[in-house]
Amino acid sequence: MRRMKLTVAYDGTNYRGWQIQHPTKEHPEGTLPTIQGMLQLALGQLLPGEAVQGMIPVLGASRTDSGVHALGNVAVFDTNIRIPASNFPKAINRFLPPDIRVMRAEEVSADFHPRFVLHRKYYEYCIDRADIPNPMSCRYAYNYSFPLDLERMRKAAACLVGVHDFTSFVNPDSQVFQHGGDAVREIYAIHLETCGDLLRIRISGNGFLYHMIRIIVGTLLLVGTGKREPEEIRTMLECRDRTASGPTVPAHGLCLCRLDYERKDHDII
Amino acid sequence: MRRMKLTVAYDGTNYRGWQIQHPTKEHPEGTLPTIQGMLQLALGQLLPGEAVQGMIPVLGASRTDSGVHALGNVAVFDTNIRIPASNFPKAINRFLPPDIRVMRAEEVSADFHPRFVLHRKYYEYCIDRADIPNPMSCRYAYNYSFPLDLERMRKAAACLVGVHDFTSFVNPDSQVFQHGGDAVREIYAIHLETCGDLLRIRISGNGFLYHMIRIIVGTLLLVGTGKREPEEIRTMLECRDRTASGPTVPAHGLCLCRLDYERKDHDII
Repeated sequence: MRRMKLTVAYDGTNYRGWQIQHPTKEHPEGTLPTIQGMLQLALGQLLPGEAVQGMIPVLGASRTDSGVHALGNVAVFDTNIRIPASNFPKAINRFLPPDIRVMRAEEVSADFHPRFVLHRKYYEYCIDRADIPNPMSCRYAYNYSFPLDLERMRKAAACLVGVHDFTSFVNPDSQVFQHGGDAVREIYAIHLETCGDLLRIRISGNGFLYHMIRIIVGTLLLVGTGKREPEEIRTMLECRDRTASGPTVPAHGLCLCRLDYERKDHDII
Repeated sequence: MRRMKLTVAYDGTNYRGWQIQHPTKEHPEGTLPTIQGMLQLALGQLLPGEAVQGMIPVLGASRTDSGVHALGNVAVFDTNIRIPASNFPKAINRFLPPDIRVMRAEEVSADFHPRFVLHRKYYEYCIDRADIPNPMSCRYAYNYSFPLDLERMRKAAACLVGVHDFTSFVNPDSQVFQHGGDAVREIYAIHLETCGDLLRIRISGNGFLYHMIRIIVGTLLLVGTGKREPEEIRTMLECRDRTASGPTVPAHGLCLCRLDYERKDHDII
């Protein structure tokens, strides 16, 4: 068997997030399509001999939420096919809708796990600051037209960089708490960049918890509008209480841009 | 009565172009929604006292095709309402879907006609040159991954600038020919700009005919891939025959960016 690593880009607008949904009482036929579900079905169509119930299971790196986009999420699957990895994206993309594309395929070692060897994740949150949102940005940018002081926001962002317990910036429903895990993570950098009416908040770190980036952005907006002081970020972190931080901004402004893997040279054959 | 000039932006993906469609034998209930239709209905909802059959008629500047986008199309309508023009966009946008936005409203003189006093139109055609199209650009960019020689394309574009008879670059079904008009127009400038995988072809002129920009872009692509020489543009123009030029590229790469009006200071009160 070969393990194939796929780099997957998608417009999340029409999907119920990454993770495949299993039938529930409310949705006995299963639910809205998911990225993982579409990918598993497409693999099943491309390689029917290896499919089980029409699908080939994939392991995803990041379970993006409903409506979140990606330029570089990662999934792996195991297969016996012999076509070169470089030909694989064109083959599989024929079975995917245009809003999901496999951008790259690489063969990796059999023990490569896309979640456990992750080194660095890059996300971007896009805000359209125009009074009236541009309809050609509105799928990918959250419209927020209150005046923002970017210098205050940068000061607040600097307080979040480093190793912290991010409990105050995580949705309390996070599975990590149910499984006895903690919210200690490292944020490597937060950059704010403007281009016309668009403000892009770029965040990289070693891992992000449920709604963490959207709560961070919501809190930075409170600082930008003057409702909170940049220095208050420190006390928010210390009190480890979700009610201390700002609101969760909408999913559609968020994009998972890139995932970097540790020992990359070693893992990729 | 006051004449209001609206600047309208839209994502054209889900619309059958600008112009309202009347019921036909195939579509007795009318057809797919159009931008003009949605705008007329929204005005009718905002100002029911002035509506006829639920709509208020608008005069549009540019009848964009099915799937073409706009950041700055223009429409006018007449009304007795007294709210300040600057408050009007927020009021009307409540009745429009998010993929159509009125960006600006201004009061103009009663004889202002958005089509007849047009001075300069700016369009942009966007090409995604990546091997695999980015799903977050694919609504707004035509994926064309053959290698392109941009210098050859710029030379060809330069031959199109100026006053010419563009018959070879117009769809022969154009109404202008049915009404005895001609295809003499002036192109002011054509610029090619790249940003990552995206190639933006920006064209301005005093008027464009049916499919003209999409045929110009299709012809520039033939030159860019080496199938035609830049100098052949001159003979294409001279022969005044649609079969002499290149193919019509898809609508979804095209965006009407801006319309400038002659005697603007005079017309806008």
